[in-house]
Amino acid sequence: MPRYKLLLEYDGGDFVGWQRTDTGPSIQGALEEAVFAFCGEKLDVTGAGRTDSGVHAAGQVAHVDLPKAYRADTVRDAINAHLYPKPIAILHAEEVADDFHARFSAIGRTYLYRLADRRPPLTLTRGQVWRIPQSLDIDAMHEAAQLLCGEHDFTTFRDAQCQAKSPIKTLDVLDVSRAAGEVHVWAQARSFLHRQVRSLVGTLAEVGRGKWQVRDARRALEARDRAACGPVAPPDGLCLMRVEY
Amino acid sequence: MPRYKLLLEYDGGDFVGWQRTDTGPSIQGALEEAVFAFCGEKLDVTGAGRTDSGVHAAGQVAHVDLPKAYRADTVRDAINAHLYPKPIAILHAEEVADDFHARFSAIGRTYLYRLADRRPPLTLTRGQVWRIPQSLDIDAMHEAAQLLCGEHDFTTFRDAQCQAKSPIKTLDVLDVSRAAGEVHVWAQARSFLHRQVRSLVGTLAEVGRGKWQVRDARRALEARDRAACGPVAPPDGLCLMRVEY
Repeated sequence: MPRYKLLLEYDGGDFVGWQRTDTGPSIQGALEEAVFAFCGEKLDVTGAGRTDSGVHAAGQVAHVDLPKAYRADTVRDAINAHLYPKPIAILHAEEVADDFHARFSAIGRTYLYRLADRRPPLTLTRGQVWRIPQSLDIDAMHEAAQLLCGEHDFTTFRDAQCQAKSPIKTLDVLDVSRAAGEVHVWAQARSFLHRQVRSLVGTLAEVGRGKWQVRDARRALEARDRAACGPVAPPDGLCLMRVEY
Repeated sequence: MPRYKLLLEYDGGDFVGWQRTDTGPSIQGALEEAVFAFCGEKLDVTGAGRTDSGVHAAGQVAHVDLPKAYRADTVRDAINAHLYPKPIAILHAEEVADDFHARFSAIGRTYLYRLADRRPPLTLTRGQVWRIPQSLDIDAMHEAAQLLCGEHDFTTFRDAQCQAKSPIKTLDVLDVSRAAGEVHVWAQARSFLHRQVRSLVGTLAEVGRGKWQVRDARRALEARDRAACGPVAPPDGLCLMRVEY
């Protein structure tokens, strides 16, 4: 059973999220159906990150053990043909060692959260950007973000359903900047808690709007209390950009 | 009747184009309906460029004469509310002098054409990028593009339906570069012939694929013959970025 590493891109808008479930179409389910159509076997496709409903990916990674060896480009093109017209595509496939694991071998994950601080509704970027109808103070957001970086107990920024054993994570990067007429928040860590990025962005947005002071973000962190978190940002703006091994 | 200048953004994917017609929903028609809902009068909305079906805009400009003076922000927000959820938005509105004309006062138009040279189908950028499933030689494309700049008879790159009196135009900029994992073609001129940008891009793509030599693009121009044009690029990748006055 040769193992293949798959680099994936998808628009998560019409899916219930990465994980296969009975409640609706999932990215994982769509991939497993396409793999079945390709090789005739029901196989598990394991992802690096379980993106939520509505969350996108430009660089998700998954692995699958195929029943026999194929050329990597054949794996990519054939599964893509079965996925189409669903907005999910394998950008790259390669055979990897049996001990490669998309989730457990990952040593870094990078997310981009896109915001637009404008009154007019979105058109070209609808579903991929969170619109906030007032101008954001991104200097204050970036300053607050720096107070959240490092190793901390992120209980405040963790969904109540989060299944991680420990709330302690190391946030390596949380950068806020203007780019292409939008506000971009880049977040990087070895791994994240459930809804951690959206919780962090929601809190930073409160700072950007001037409802919270910069130090309030740090106080929220130190409260180690989910109730201290700002409103969680919607999934639309979030995209898993890169997984490192 | 105070005149308002409107800066517009839209996703042209589900429209028959800018121009009001009986054949389906148009951008102009949608705007005129929203203006009617706002002020109760059937008024003409005049655009700077008549974008084709499927062509987008991030900076189209239009003007409309409203029956009375309103605050510019009210014009923007009220018409946007009537446009929603159609993917058309007024980014900015301002009152202008009566002699301002969105089309005839314009002295420059800038288009961006986005291509992706990749085998995997598009997901996040579907409908906004032209995918070409092989790698493009962008140096050759840019070199060919330079041979098409300047004042020329652009009969080769003009749609058979074009209503312009003269096929002579001055193409100020035609730049090809890689950006954000895509191939971007920027085109700038005082005005363009019908389908000129898509005709130019289609021809440059032939050069990028290696089917045409750089000099073939110049020969096509010099032929002054529509039949000498490469295949016209699809509308998806084209976006009207800016109109100058």
